[in-house]
Amino acid sequence: MTTERGFFIGRFQPVHDGHLQLIEQIAGEVDELVVGIGSAGDSHSVGDPFTAGERVMMVTKSLESLSITTYAVPIEDLNRNAVWVSHVQSMAPRFDVAYSNNPLVVQLFTEAGVEVRSTGLYDRDHLKGSKIRQLMIDGDDWRQYVPAAVEDVIEEIRGVERLRQVAEHDDF
Amino acid sequence: MTTERGFFIGRFQPVHDGHLQLIEQIAGEVDELVVGIGSAGDSHSVGDPFTAGERVMMVTKSLESLSITTYAVPIEDLNRNAVWVSHVQSMAPRFDVAYSNNPLVVQLFTEAGVEVRSTGLYDRDHLKGSKIRQLMIDGDDWRQYVPAAVEDVIEEIRGVERLRQVAEHDDF
Amino acid sequence: MTTERGFFIGRFQPVHDGHLQLIEQIAGEVDELVVGIGSAGDSHSVGDPFTAGERVMMVTKSLESLSITTYAVPIEDLNRNAVWVSHVQSMAPRFDVAYSNNPLVVQLFTEAGVEVRSTGLYDRDHLKGSKIRQLMIDGDDWRQYVPAAVEDVIEEIRGVERLRQVAEHDDF
Amino acid sequence: MTTERGFFIGRFQPVHDGHLQLIEQIAGEVDELVVGIGSAGDSHSVGDPFTAGERVMMVTKSLESLSITTYAVPIEDLNRNAVWVSHVQSMAPRFDVAYSNNPLVVQLFTEAGVEVRSTGLYDRDHLKGSKIRQLMIDGDDWRQYVPAAVEDVIEEIRGVERLRQVAEHDDF
Amino acid sequence: MTTERGFFIGRFQPVHDGHLQLIEQIAGEVDELVVGIGSAGDSHSVGDPFTAGERVMMVTKSLESLSITTYAVPIEDLNRNAVWVSHVQSMAPRFDVAYSNNPLVVQLFTEAGVEVRSTGLYDRDHLKGSKIRQLMIDGDDWRQYVPAAVEDVIEEIRGVERLRQVAEHDDF
Amino acid sequence: MTTERGFFIGRFQPVHDGHLQLIEQIAGEVDELVVGIGSAGDSHSVGDPFTAGERVMMVTKSLESLSITTYAVPIEDLNRNAVWVSHVQSMAPRFDVAYSNNPLVVQLFTEAGVEVRSTGLYDRDHLKGSKIRQLMIDGDDWRQYVPAAVEDVIEEIRGVERLRQVAEHDDF
Repeated sequence: MTTERGFFIGRFQPVHDGHLQLIEQIAGEVDELVVGIGSAGDSHSVGDPFTAGERVMMVTKSLESLSITTYAVPIEDLNRNAVWVSHVQSMAPRFDVAYSNNPLVVQLFTEAGVEVRSTGLYDRDHLKGSKIRQLMIDGDDWRQYVPAAVEDVIEEIRGVERLRQVAEHDDF
Repeated sequence: MTTERGFFIGRFQPVHDGHLQLIEQIAGEVDELVVGIGSAGDSHSVGDPFTAGERVMMVTKSLESLSITTYAVPIEDLNRNAVWVSHVQSMAPRFDVAYSNNPLVVQLFTEAGVEVRSTGLYDRDHLKGSKIRQLMIDGDDWRQYVPAAVEDVIEEIRGVERLRQVAEHDDF
Repeated sequence: MTTERGFFIGRFQPVHDGHLQLIEQIAGEVDELVVGIGSAGDSHSVGDPFTAGERVMMVTKSLESLSITTYAVPIEDLNRNAVWVSHVQSMAPRFDVAYSNNPLVVQLFTEAGVEVRSTGLYDRDHLKGSKIRQLMIDGDDWRQYVPAAVEDVIEEIRGVERLRQVAEHDDF
Repeated sequence: MTTERGFFIGRFQPVHDGHLQLIEQIAGEVDELVVGIGSAGDSHSVGDPFTAGERVMMVTKSLESLSITTYAVPIEDLNRNAVWVSHVQSMAPRFDVAYSNNPLVVQLFTEAGVEVRSTGLYDRDHLKGSKIRQLMIDGDDWRQYVPAAVEDVIEEIRGVERLRQVAEHDDF
Repeated sequence: MTTERGFFIGRFQPVHDGHLQLIEQIAGEVDELVVGIGSAGDSHSVGDPFTAGERVMMVTKSLESLSITTYAVPIEDLNRNAVWVSHVQSMAPRFDVAYSNNPLVVQLFTEAGVEVRSTGLYDRDHLKGSKIRQLMIDGDDWRQYVPAAVEDVIEEIRGVERLRQVAEHDDF
Repeated sequence: MTTERGFFIGRFQPVHDGHLQLIEQIAGEVDELVVGIGSAGDSHSVGDPFTAGERVMMVTKSLESLSITTYAVPIEDLNRNAVWVSHVQSMAPRFDVAYSNNPLVVQLFTEAGVEVRSTGLYDRDHLKGSKIRQLMIDGDDWRQYVPAAVEDVIEEIRGVERLRQVAEHDDF
């Protein structure tokens, strides 16, 4: 009997409870899970404050209690949609099924002959990277929406300070 | 007597009757024609649904009845305007004159010492890539605006289905 | 009935009679043929004297008498074997079968699920790019090994002069 | 006693009197000054009309009367904020302190352990690249806002003509 | 008390018992370990047969029994030594000390102010990627030199077959 | 009367007295001189120990006593010979004549329509980057072959220590 491996991709700026809900659901369907960290080369901006390595930490530590083997793999943007699936496949352990609701991702995997399954739903009104980053900038309570392990990582890297600094306007 | 070779560039998303009109006109002035397929690395997006190879097919098959030798050459974006002409010249058969109305293209070829000629006019109200792609998305009649060979290519690659899928909104 | 399209790749530095023999053989088995021009970004060196565009001309003109539709497509090196097949597929019209005897190319297409067929044999003692380039450098008779159309292209671009110049040693 | 070297970066499209004021001020605080020319690969657009080399000329000639040694170094965009400081450091002579008011630049240098000092203020209502470029396009008096040496460079390269051409709309 | 995190890099073509010995030793000195997988973009060659993702699997599964948290992070070559440390730091969780005996790696980390410690020694006569790959090609017993988990991965991906194929000579 | 500007390129690993002799000779023939620093992205290797920025310092300081305006411009390798001249031209102030004895450089500039002049001769038995680097590694007297300003730069950056370290063999 072979191992069934699933693939799930996100930008994880930062990892939040919505990601965790989806991943836990997927973890119930597969034997192993590869988590792709998209736009891996981006960091230090309002939309993408955290480096790939920082997001590898967030993902790894948030998923440590899962019973299945997980892999956290940075995926740099290539800006070549037509080779994106191959790029992902070369950076990730071989996988059998991709989980996504993103129309482009669905199309690319489908054209490449990879099975795609929809992910579940979660509370997108609060659990959204852009909203959580805004809470960080405004000094509001972002901690309620992320796993405890993510709080620790953001503290260790002084992530809120970085985000606030790069969100400032050029003031001279 | 030497061969005069012309150059014409477009994104060809997709090839339409307006392109064909211009190219037929140019074909009357030169001995051979190089057709550059711009933004060759882009595909699978609303603005650029078709791959370079699919557009090579569209161009080649649409021009098969022309009496002059034509070349269809993909040109990847370099994002370096200052080296763009050299990049084009290295990917294309040597040419004597570039046909373009695009102000940037005119400037770049002129600075490089390449003769530039204006292209003719055509009905831009209907013959425009963005309008034809919208017809595809909306399920309206796009076929009347493209050569029959282009219809066949888009059918073969299931191009309308791809375009509609990537035009969908992320719905979860 | 669908069109069967074949794919054949080479560096074509320059196109010679051996290439022509293989391509004519392949042309008897498929409906259309895509010719990939490898290492498209290389030129002006002893091993790769001719630009992609110059090789597009050589291929196109050498194959003009073939009865099937052919496409000549430059393929730039990516230095990422794992995404090479996707890169080729995005630059080339869709193809059903790849013709190659190169072990790496065979492996890459096979892993990607593309059918691979061996090409035939030809006289590799004389019909080899490196030997023909040496004849050019030495001022010996290279013309007997290439199609007439290739002679014309090399003349037009002053290719032998270029090759001899870049083959010179730094003499100060 | 070691040399203290400062670093100042801008896009310099074109160099104007505001740049000169800041640089003269910095020149009073350090022994040598490295001027980074950002987005070095961009040119021939409305926002970035001049090449890196043209901007090297503007900077070098504008600063010729300064009593300290200055270096003008093109810095190409990497689109990887996390490695940007190393990229700058590898292209520039070693420097001790970076002068910037840009929040992202401040953050990146600070995380890398490089001392950052704020630059002074100047009349941003008139001395701003975008405003000066608009004056050029409109045929108004841009010369009053740039050093005389910059006027000469722009004349030599026919810079205003270029900017006006690339600012035109596609009119067919 | 803060976590001390170590960094160790290799090409892991494939992971073998020598790697494992070093890593177990390092694991005794730090709280967490980041394993960098070098030349991540290389694969399908005699020197680098396995993809980054396949090597992520080998590393992750070989280290599953370690008591400390480990991260397996692909590091693509940049061919820019001067920015290599920043590149590594952006792809990896923040680390305090790098383990390496490689003179270049030692120099680069030292210049960047990162503490470097030597790794231990092991039996390099047998435990060497190039030797193990040769055993695979020759059909000899390579399994004795790699962890059991690595055997499983290589089986799953049909790695020996791939290596033998790309090691063949072009025979036509 | 227009300014005549010359261009001279080298890798300058490091700048030595032979470079200086050639440049002084060229300086007698032109009004301004652009010095291109080739392979700008390479550093920290036995063949290319110094960064672009360090070589900018060497060139600038060695030429400070010249009476003409000089520019030191890093030129990164593109590995695309066919666009190399445009790349150089975009990074350098506009120049009228290129000085080179390198056959490839001569060919590329000639094809691009740039006037090329031969450089003079100098004592290549001693004044050669590879020999001077070997003296550094061996602890012999390299200082006699380089300008005093270059000695200072290499001291400041601890260049000999770096070169010796990267020249070491992996010894475990």
